[in-house]
Amino acid sequence: MTNQSKQKVHAARKAIEYVEDGMVLGLGTGSTMDVFLDLLGERVQAGLQIKGVPTSVKTEQKAKQLGIPLTTLSDHPKLDLAFDGADEIDPDFQLTKGGGGSLLREKMVDVTAKQFIVVADESKMVNQLGAFPLPVEVVKFGWDSIREQLEALGCDAVLREVDGLPFETDNDQFIIDCHFHQIENPHMLRDQIKSIVGVVEVGLFLDMTDIVLVGVDEEVIIYEKGV
Amino acid sequence: MTNQSKQKVHAARKAIEYVEDGMVLGLGTGSTMDVFLDLLGERVQAGLQIKGVPTSVKTEQKAKQLGIPLTTLSDHPKLDLAFDGADEIDPDFQLTKGGGGSLLREKMVDVTAKQFIVVADESKMVNQLGAFPLPVEVVKFGWDSIREQLEALGCDAVLREVDGLPFETDNDQFIIDCHFHQIENPHMLRDQIKSIVGVVEVGLFLDMTDIVLVGVDEEVIIYEKGV
Repeated sequence: MTNQSKQKVHAARKAIEYVEDGMVLGLGTGSTMDVFLDLLGERVQAGLQIKGVPTSVKTEQKAKQLGIPLTTLSDHPKLDLAFDGADEIDPDFQLTKGGGGSLLREKMVDVTAKQFIVVADESKMVNQLGAFPLPVEVVKFGWDSIREQLEALGCDAVLREVDGLPFETDNDQFIIDCHFHQIENPHMLRDQIKSIVGVVEVGLFLDMTDIVLVGVDEEVIIYEKGV
Repeated sequence: MTNQSKQKVHAARKAIEYVEDGMVLGLGTGSTMDVFLDLLGERVQAGLQIKGVPTSVKTEQKAKQLGIPLTTLSDHPKLDLAFDGADEIDPDFQLTKGGGGSLLREKMVDVTAKQFIVVADESKMVNQLGAFPLPVEVVKFGWDSIREQLEALGCDAVLREVDGLPFETDNDQFIIDCHFHQIENPHMLRDQIKSIVGVVEVGLFLDMTDIVLVGVDEEVIIYEKGV
């Protein structure tokens, strides 16, 4: 097991400790969340009573295989906890997310939780956001015109492809990856991007995070908001 | 022909006068635009050289039937003129649109034109926006949670249905009609609605209109920005 994999396991194990009987949980997407889901599945098999709201079709399928009971935002508009990974976490707990392409559903679920817990390995901690390309979910119609408007904000903007075809999100939309390299003002950038007509959501998750659990080599560092 | 129909014809005839050979035009959607497209089709048959970018599948089909050559925003990111109707027009030329369900594509096209010309009958002129329900295009996932967040802004928010099934836009998304009755501050409301995760676009078209052509009984009133 690589160091990074070990760190993910440490962080996911700590995350499980926050879960209590009767909770409704947001279930994130990504490699760290896969580890978390495996652990959660074991707890459910052992009798833990929870329900989950998945943030992607992929997480939904995995949760079903693991026997984790699922529900919807319509039935539970206020979740107890949401767990999710991140591509980058800055010192103010601001995040970039969406490398896996599920940013819209992730944001919808994560934003409705009483507490949003980010689970990550050490490599995700950065001093400034932007080295990781910022994903923007856009409608298909006129995507090229949207791409040009994104580039006007000072990035290289690239339509995400898989096997030579445009990648389609769970919502049947496109992702444009924006290479800013450095994001000086995340709030301003989010507002600028959101004001482009045809942008559905942007992978900047700002002022949402309550707790960050970072797996390091032999332990987990816990950051809590306001502490 | 009703008075309203006559007014639409008057306004559409005036709109045609703005069109010149070689232009690329945004082609709006709705009953006034249908009249405009018929007139534009006649001009094309008589030799006018233009290309159009349709704002809906419906307009695209009608334009094809009329022999109007079409192109895309990707090929022409900057249009010469865009013509479109409106549901409401206030004294500052701020609009509500989207009664026909095409608000997203309309906004994408209308916003890229050098001049945006609104074509309407007299009934669309209002002192204050909001009597017409404000359409909001949203993703399907979690639409009910989005609906509740819209209601928290002070409206009755209703999922648009057709024959008992949710109405689907050309982008395969839902429309939620928001009954505000009175919109005191359109800019603030637009920003509040756009900040809800899962909202794709809102039918407030602000600071976009250059010219309004209003058909009244025997004439057309022309309003131009800054005049």
